[in-house]
Amino acid sequence: MIKVSVMYPNGPDAHFDEAYYRDRHMPMVKELMGDYCKYYTVDRALAAGTPETNAPYIAMGHLFCESVDAFQAGFGPHTKQIMGDIPNYTNQKPIIQISEVLVG
Amino acid sequence: MIKVSVMYPNGPDAHFDEAYYRDRHMPMVKELMGDYCKYYTVDRALAAGTPETNAPYIAMGHLFCESVDAFQAGFGPHTKQIMGDIPNYTNQKPIIQISEVLVG
Repeated sequence: MIKVSVMYPNGPDAHFDEAYYRDRHMPMVKELMGDYCKYYTVDRALAAGTPETNAPYIAMGHLFCESVDAFQAGFGPHTKQIMGDIPNYTNQKPIIQISEVLVG
Repeated sequence: MIKVSVMYPNGPDAHFDEAYYRDRHMPMVKELMGDYCKYYTVDRALAAGTPETNAPYIAMGHLFCESVDAFQAGFGPHTKQIMGDIPNYTNQKPIIQISEVLVG
């Protein structure tokens, strides 16, 4: 299983519409990808326990797929539509990481 | 539910013993935290599909807890032991993010 983490950097001017992301963007991605996306998760930054701690990412979404090939087959044909939706919920440019899930 | 993400930066000199992390470090953390840690996951960076892509983190571990208070109650008393184990598997200093799980 692989995990595609889409991480939106935090910062003083960062904004992120988590309701739009959770209720519209990510369900759209799942619908477009179909079974190529097994499931997904969504996190949003919490203020950490100590004042000096600053969350590096305002929000993150993670897509779980059987393989990199499956991800590319599911995401590739819809890249333009999916990326084009980003300005509807944030002014941040996401950082992407593809990982292998060692413990899931 | 909250998620404590422990992210180890990648880099030309980064090393990470994923077998030690998966088989010794993370089981130790879970045992020390007991029920304060509901479960955990472990990812390691994959070379992404395109040569110009570079994974920002060589590995990540995620602890899932009921609340920040539960995390602090479970982790706090063992911080020294847990942090002291880091040099046994990596030369990298982790970045921590505490998130709320919106979709789990």
